[in-house]
Amino acid sequence: MTQGTVRAAIGDSEFDRDTAVTRRAPGIYDTELSAGWTIINAVNGGYLLAVLGRALADALPHPDPFTVSAHYLTASQPGPAVVRTDVVRTGRTLSTGQASLFQQDEQGREVERIRVLASYGDLDALPDDVRTSAEPPPIPPVEECFGPQDAPGQSPVQGSTAITERLWLKLDPATLGWALGAPSGKGEMRSWFGLADGRDADPLSLLLAVDALPPTAFELGLSGWVPTVELSVHVRCRPAPGPLRVAIATRNLAGGFLEEDAEVWDSADRLVAQSRQLARTALGR
Amino acid sequence: MTQGTVRAAIGDSEFDRDTAVTRRAPGIYDTELSAGWTIINAVNGGYLLAVLGRALADALPHPDPFTVSAHYLTASQPGPAVVRTDVVRTGRTLSTGQASLFQQDEQGREVERIRVLASYGDLDALPDDVRTSAEPPPIPPVEECFGPQDAPGQSPVQGSTAITERLWLKLDPATLGWALGAPSGKGEMRSWFGLADGRDADPLSLLLAVDALPPTAFELGLSGWVPTVELSVHVRCRPAPGPLRVAIATRNLAGGFLEEDAEVWDSADRLVAQSRQLARTALGR
Repeated sequence: MTQGTVRAAIGDSEFDRDTAVTRRAPGIYDTELSAGWTIINAVNGGYLLAVLGRALADALPHPDPFTVSAHYLTASQPGPAVVRTDVVRTGRTLSTGQASLFQQDEQGREVERIRVLASYGDLDALPDDVRTSAEPPPIPPVEECFGPQDAPGQSPVQGSTAITERLWLKLDPATLGWALGAPSGKGEMRSWFGLADGRDADPLSLLLAVDALPPTAFELGLSGWVPTVELSVHVRCRPAPGPLRVAIATRNLAGGFLEEDAEVWDSADRLVAQSRQLARTALGR
Repeated sequence: MTQGTVRAAIGDSEFDRDTAVTRRAPGIYDTELSAGWTIINAVNGGYLLAVLGRALADALPHPDPFTVSAHYLTASQPGPAVVRTDVVRTGRTLSTGQASLFQQDEQGREVERIRVLASYGDLDALPDDVRTSAEPPPIPPVEECFGPQDAPGQSPVQGSTAITERLWLKLDPATLGWALGAPSGKGEMRSWFGLADGRDADPLSLLLAVDALPPTAFELGLSGWVPTVELSVHVRCRPAPGPLRVAIATRNLAGGFLEEDAEVWDSADRLVAQSRQLARTALGR
């Protein structure tokens, strides 16, 4: 996202190609999960949501995800996958669908990776009325924030960090203690967010944005994979062009499980997405 | 919940009888939606979640709802209903299921009311480790709060208020402006919460608690029904005996939709449940 570089367009970008689905039959879509979106030992959960979201946008009469609820079943791996969709209900303003992503295991058996319920609508058809008390997160200017590319040594993350090359992340130094071996103890993570090729945000890429930052658990002093059990996201309006800001907060780590509340703001200072996930730590296994 | 009265026991109470399901065949349960849990023109969404939650507790190998994601399709009416469950995945710590509730319309056609995905576990098997920064909500003592029974005149709610007779609600006066014709403009609702017959809370009744207060939209100056599109709830630990406190907040009303974030605290000052829903106002229709 450096000024002056050629920016990829919505519909013709790495993200669009890597989330593309091909309709084989009504309600059945083939896709190829890209190794470019892996983190630690699995394909990123937000990227998976975007793949499922794209299949549902084709299957349902409404274009935009308003709310998507996902339950993560098994860890996805790069490679071929099949998405099956089911139209649950179609209404005038909203339609609801279900989708599952499947891959084959080493024995050739089909394994379900993730199942979602989603309600779609048309963001452009909503009235302009806004009554909000929400305030944008306190993230310093980009030039005072740091991305994975700014790190002096080896990444503190054990395993794949491929996804960081697809993203443009500039993290708030106040939430970067974990990367320097000094986690703050607060369950907060804040970052500027974009796609590395400069593609602007759209409702589908918001599904990625809510689950693409380092886990808040790192700032709570935990390390290792923090797999998502469930994630629900609401897309509240179409994002304006330009960088996003993402703020994630965890208040309650208990019994080995924690929630992550994310909000995404666009360059016009509008709250464009909200999500909450339940994740588990090594303690919760 | 007056001191000295006989309190109903978990398993033998109005709530338990009204959420009972009878297994007709594997994955098919009959139930009867009680008219006692209606509000305005439909059966309460939290009550429906508890009915579905009970069916899933029977269908899945784990006893307790850890996370339930519901998409509301059509308004439920008192009367017979069928719940169909599907076991999606069973694991050592967690199992995931799906459930739908159906009723017949006037022409005898089956109509789906609500569909959920849920992951269940065993709350009693979780480690005791708690690292939380969450603080209980600032609700005044019970004797300074007010319930529907304390209202001097007619209820400001247009339509059924049957559910208020099944609940013990004592609302924070700071969030009661709507009932006096002077909504605060803040999207907040806070209340002490229990069941009218004194039955203590359990994980299933927490599914009711997160969606049983008056809508925050009332305090934002809106009236009428605010139907839920999607609701996800996390049950974080088994609630201690005694009254609960529920706090709900809305930060963003935009394009006719709003989120409601609820948290439920038990008498031991533990955060026992968190939920978020997307609801729509008349503007969003």
